[in-house]
Amino acid sequence: VLVAEQTATWAGTFTRNAAAAPCVHWNRQLLGRPARAVVCNSGNANACTGADGCRAVEATAVAAARATGCDPTEVLVASTGPIGVALDVERLIAALPTAIAALSPEVGPFAASILTTDTTTKVARAGAEGAEVVGVAKGAAMLAPNMATMLAFITTDAEIDHFGLQDGLERAVDASFNRICIDACESTNDTVACLATGRARVGRRALDAALEEVCTSLSEQIARDAEGGTRLVRITVTGASDEQAAATLGRAVAASALWRAAVHGADPNWGRVAAALGAVDRALDLGRLSIAIGPELLFAKGEPVGSPGAVRRTLASDEVTVTCTVGEGPASVQVLSADLSPEYVTLNAYATT
Amino acid sequence: VLVAEQTATWAGTFTRNAAAAPCVHWNRQLLGRPARAVVCNSGNANACTGADGCRAVEATAVAAARATGCDPTEVLVASTGPIGVALDVERLIAALPTAIAALSPEVGPFAASILTTDTTTKVARAGAEGAEVVGVAKGAAMLAPNMATMLAFITTDAEIDHFGLQDGLERAVDASFNRICIDACESTNDTVACLATGRARVGRRALDAALEEVCTSLSEQIARDAEGGTRLVRITVTGASDEQAAATLGRAVAASALWRAAVHGADPNWGRVAAALGAVDRALDLGRLSIAIGPELLFAKGEPVGSPGAVRRTLASDEVTVTCTVGEGPASVQVLSADLSPEYVTLNAYATT
Repeated sequence: VLVAEQTATWAGTFTRNAAAAPCVHWNRQLLGRPARAVVCNSGNANACTGADGCRAVEATAVAAARATGCDPTEVLVASTGPIGVALDVERLIAALPTAIAALSPEVGPFAASILTTDTTTKVARAGAEGAEVVGVAKGAAMLAPNMATMLAFITTDAEIDHFGLQDGLERAVDASFNRICIDACESTNDTVACLATGRARVGRRALDAALEEVCTSLSEQIARDAEGGTRLVRITVTGASDEQAAATLGRAVAASALWRAAVHGADPNWGRVAAALGAVDRALDLGRLSIAIGPELLFAKGEPVGSPGAVRRTLASDEVTVTCTVGEGPASVQVLSADLSPEYVTLNAYATT
Repeated sequence: VLVAEQTATWAGTFTRNAAAAPCVHWNRQLLGRPARAVVCNSGNANACTGADGCRAVEATAVAAARATGCDPTEVLVASTGPIGVALDVERLIAALPTAIAALSPEVGPFAASILTTDTTTKVARAGAEGAEVVGVAKGAAMLAPNMATMLAFITTDAEIDHFGLQDGLERAVDASFNRICIDACESTNDTVACLATGRARVGRRALDAALEEVCTSLSEQIARDAEGGTRLVRITVTGASDEQAAATLGRAVAASALWRAAVHGADPNWGRVAAALGAVDRALDLGRLSIAIGPELLFAKGEPVGSPGAVRRTLASDEVTVTCTVGEGPASVQVLSADLSPEYVTLNAYATT
């Protein structure tokens, strides 16, 4: 449970999945109103749970409002875990008083409480003139919990109206969380919520920069802790016609199970990058395409070059960069990914039973 | 090497990947002309190999034409293996006389010669009135060879012009090979070529039916032998607005690494099916969606029903069916897939080195 010391403005971004969980619908309809608290549970996504699932969200908000002295419409709800399993909402509600009694100004316990298969807590802070922005997240990975649920909660004491905060948050999320692609499986529960208590006056530019700094840091922490992953992979696409096209190409490389398996084996299999790009952009001109792993150029405007063997050590490190230059325009993006390991499969083969 | 007893009409379908291999470009430009022979190598895709790769294809065709007494433009070339590795074309050309001397009317040796990580040969036959259609294929899976290369070669003694054969083949491929999705990685080398020698008169309808029968059988054989796979997964989408929409939904489920991992573990994790559908169709109405595994309905128009535990035995068998009813219209398709195993990752982690 997260409770703001006073009523806060809030902004949110959510999964676009049509199978979005009831809690996502609940939060979305509250956008524009004030918020006071967030209740988050792990171990059950409460998604595809029908009418009972909707009632569970409302009951959670009502109970949390009563316990914290606010209105149910001021309570945001987030869940992560297996999809399609009935939520034991009585158990959740019964635990609320204990959770609320244990509230503290420390971010650590809250950051730890929302983890599922994450191996570390994810916290980021940034200053914005006289205000501070603090964010926590749980990772884009799954196990006994199920889908790639990405949750992040950000708080700030900055003074900002809803529309300004929503605008700043959307830009920050676009440049950070929306540039992570681990296994291409979009969750039904992804939620980023930012609460601003309005105690400190701050310029919009400074606040936007702090939001982006926090979101970017949390994104990297999530990608580094990808389930079963052993390396962070930075996919840079340059020379694309526009940012949208660049992101599509980057996500296609990130989604390639074959490329990710090769990274796991530190195998300089750049051909799989070319195949992933060519599958998503039918008009890609191979004669303008170049691919580098780390600093080593391996494919230059349609011709294989360099020494793939020289890249093995680069690939075996904690962080790998692959740069794809497509020669279509001025836009570039970076997409974060991770390698695909046998452990990822094992972890996800027996999740609900 | 495959050599027709006389000059044949031929039809072909190819990968749409923008990084398509030089041999794909070579074959595509020959469409509409007569054909006499096919040269296929495994162990190297000769893709992303630049100008040298193009020269290698032409040299192969010239050498094979000389050895079989036809024109180079009557020789189709196909390759499968790692991408971006220079092809030792001299070695390939030097082996042609031995291969041609060993030609026989038996389909078995040719079917065996094109395999890579396939564990069995893939052959299918169908009669079309007085004609016969015989096809061989190698699988949609990879290992020391690299991308999901799917090659199939079909021969018939039926009399048919190029346009009729092309039309029949495209319909058959659409209903079969284009309904397989194993790891969502599209190859640079996929090729289906059908040669018709024109000895036997046959009605179009009978020939089309035989082509579809052969392609469907080969597709199933490929999906059953998916790399690292232990079960064939039939994904049936019904009630879609049109066939295209149904295929998109079916392929989204097939591409879900999480659903495939769950199938590997015989875990009745139908929520991952819902999440995959909702991610690809933003307008999907959860209240009309139903999901069944085998005969057991687990999600009925937005509500979880039935007993997931009862499905475990069904999931543990050689063949699994998942049926998704979306309630948007009259169209339905079946997409073939396979489970995702740790072995798939291991097999693909060290492919080029």
